[in-house]
Amino acid sequence: MMPLSENSGPAVIAAVIGLGSMGMGMALSMKRKGLDVVGYDITPGAVDRFVAEGGRGAASPADAAADADIVVSVVVNGAQTESVLFGPQGIAATMKADAVFISSATMDPAVARNLAERAEALGLHYLDAPISGGAAKAARGELTIMASGSRKAFETARPALDAMAGKVYELGNAAGTGAAFKMINQLLAGVHIAAACEAITFAAKQGLDLDKVYEVITASAGNSWMFENRVPHILAGDYAPLSSIEIFVKDLGIVQDMARSERYPTPLAAAALQMYLAAAGAGMGRDDDSSLARLYAKLSGAELPGSAKEPQSL
Amino acid sequence: MMPLSENSGPAVIAAVIGLGSMGMGMALSMKRKGLDVVGYDITPGAVDRFVAEGGRGAASPADAAADADIVVSVVVNGAQTESVLFGPQGIAATMKADAVFISSATMDPAVARNLAERAEALGLHYLDAPISGGAAKAARGELTIMASGSRKAFETARPALDAMAGKVYELGNAAGTGAAFKMINQLLAGVHIAAACEAITFAAKQGLDLDKVYEVITASAGNSWMFENRVPHILAGDYAPLSSIEIFVKDLGIVQDMARSERYPTPLAAAALQMYLAAAGAGMGRDDDSSLARLYAKLSGAELPGSAKEPQSL
Repeated sequence: MMPLSENSGPAVIAAVIGLGSMGMGMALSMKRKGLDVVGYDITPGAVDRFVAEGGRGAASPADAAADADIVVSVVVNGAQTESVLFGPQGIAATMKADAVFISSATMDPAVARNLAERAEALGLHYLDAPISGGAAKAARGELTIMASGSRKAFETARPALDAMAGKVYELGNAAGTGAAFKMINQLLAGVHIAAACEAITFAAKQGLDLDKVYEVITASAGNSWMFENRVPHILAGDYAPLSSIEIFVKDLGIVQDMARSERYPTPLAAAALQMYLAAAGAGMGRDDDSSLARLYAKLSGAELPGSAKEPQSL
Repeated sequence: MMPLSENSGPAVIAAVIGLGSMGMGMALSMKRKGLDVVGYDITPGAVDRFVAEGGRGAASPADAAADADIVVSVVVNGAQTESVLFGPQGIAATMKADAVFISSATMDPAVARNLAERAEALGLHYLDAPISGGAAKAARGELTIMASGSRKAFETARPALDAMAGKVYELGNAAGTGAAFKMINQLLAGVHIAAACEAITFAAKQGLDLDKVYEVITASAGNSWMFENRVPHILAGDYAPLSSIEIFVKDLGIVQDMARSERYPTPLAAAALQMYLAAAGAGMGRDDDSSLARLYAKLSGAELPGSAKEPQSL
C-alpha cells in the first residue's frame, strides 16, 4: 500500500544516511508521518533493523539517494559529511536536480559553508541543520533543529523538518549559521558538564551528602541544564553511555579550531577539553560524559557512589 | 507601640550587623514580621536609612548586640565575621548567654568551624547560614539559606530564619556544612557566568544575532541559571552592578584556597578565576560580573551591544 503524504499526492521520498541512535529515530519519525523513507548505514545490521521496522534499505549512499527528494545526513562530523557528498562514491553528482541535502552533523561553520557552496554549484539545495535533543526525542520526532539555508532549501526540506522536529529555529539564509549556533551550545554544554563533575566530586571530597547537594544546587543559582541532567548518573554510579566523552573531545575540539582561527580566546572551553582528553586517555572515551566525575575522583581520592565500577584502566 | 511577636509575648530582639543591600533587606523583613530589630553598619548613612524605615540604630556592633536574642551578621567575608565576633570591639564576650550568632557571609568551611567552636566555648550558639538569592529576595524575606548548626542554634534562630527566608535547607548539626554547600554553589555560579560571557561574545565575534542566540540557548541543553540571568545585561549593554566582578574574585579565591588545601584540582574554577582577576585588573572590579563579556570582547575585537559604554580604563 502506498503511504499518503499530507497533500495526498505521491509520497515524498526521503533518504537517511546514517542509522545510529539519532538517524534511526529520525528515519522512523519520517516514516510515521507518511514519507517514503530509504535508509543506509555503513553497518549492515543497522539497515536490517530499519527494514525490520518496515523501512526500505539501500546498499550504498548513492543507492539510497538516487530517487530522493530529501537526503538527511546523520553522520558523525564534517569529514564524514564531505565524504557522503563528494567522496569516491559521493552522492552529490547523482542526486536528483532540485533535491535538498539536510546536514545534521555538528561541524565547523566554515566547513558547512564550503559544503553548501559546492553542493549548490551542482544544482542541489543545502540545509545546514544541526540537531539537539538526544535519541529519545529523535525517536519521538521532537528534536530541536538549528537550521539555516536558502528559502528553496527550507521549502524542499519542510516535510522532513516537520516530521523530525518539535522546534525548528530558522536562523537565516546562509549555511554555516546553524552550525555556529550549535557550536555555541556545545561550548556551553561541554563546560557545564565539566563544571558539574568538578563541583559534585569536590562535594564528595568534603564528605557532603551528595543527594542533598543535588537538591540544593538544582534549586539555586548554580544550576545548569547539564548539572540537572548528568549528576543523577553520578549519584547512581551508572556510566553507561547516553552521550560519550568522545562526543565532547570532538565538539570542544571544533570549538578550539574555530576559536584559534578567529583569534578568540576560550579559557573555559580549553580547560574543559583537557579534562575530556584526560578521561578519554584514561580509557573512558566510550563511557558516559559524566565519567569526568570519575576522573576528578581518581585525581583527588574522592569517593563517589558505585566507584567499585570504575573501568579496568584506572 | 510594642510590636507583637507571634506568640504575643515580648518581641524577640534581633541585631543585624551589616546593612548593605542584603543586610538591609533582611533587617526590614524581620521588622515586618514583628521582631524588634536593631541595626549597625560601619557606614553611618546606612544606619540612618534603617532608622528612617522605623528600625532602631546602634553606634557599635556591641551596642546592637547587647540585648539581642539573635545576631545576624551580614558582612563580606570570614575575616570581617571574625572581627565582629572576636576583634578589639568584638561582640562575643558581651552577647547574652544562650543567644545565637547567625553568620551569613560566604567563607571557607574551615573558618566557619573555627568561629563556631570559639563562640560555643563562650556559651553562645552559632548558626552557619550562608544566603543565596540577591537583594530583591532579601527585601521580600524570600532568601534561600543553607544552614548547619546545633539543634539549639536552629531553635533560637528560628524567628529570624522564618522572617528572612523562603527556603531554609537544614544541612546538619555541624558548622561548616552550610559554608561548604555555598562554596559548591559559588564554584558553579562563577564558572557558569564566565562560560556565558565566553560563549555570547564568541557568538558576537562570529556576527550571530545575539537575541536569537539567547532565545535558542535558553531553550537548549547549553542553558544555565546564570546564562539566563546575566546575558540580558550584556544584550542591554548595561553593566551597572547587581553583583560585582569582585564578588567572584573573592568567592572563587576561597574555592581555590579550599581546593589547594584539600589537594583537589579545579581546572574550570581556576580558569574562571583568572578571567575575573583580569576583569578586575582592567578596572571593572566594581562593575556587574557580566563585564567578563566586555573583557572577552576587548581581547578579541568582538563587538557587543552598547560597547561605547566601556569603562575609561579599557
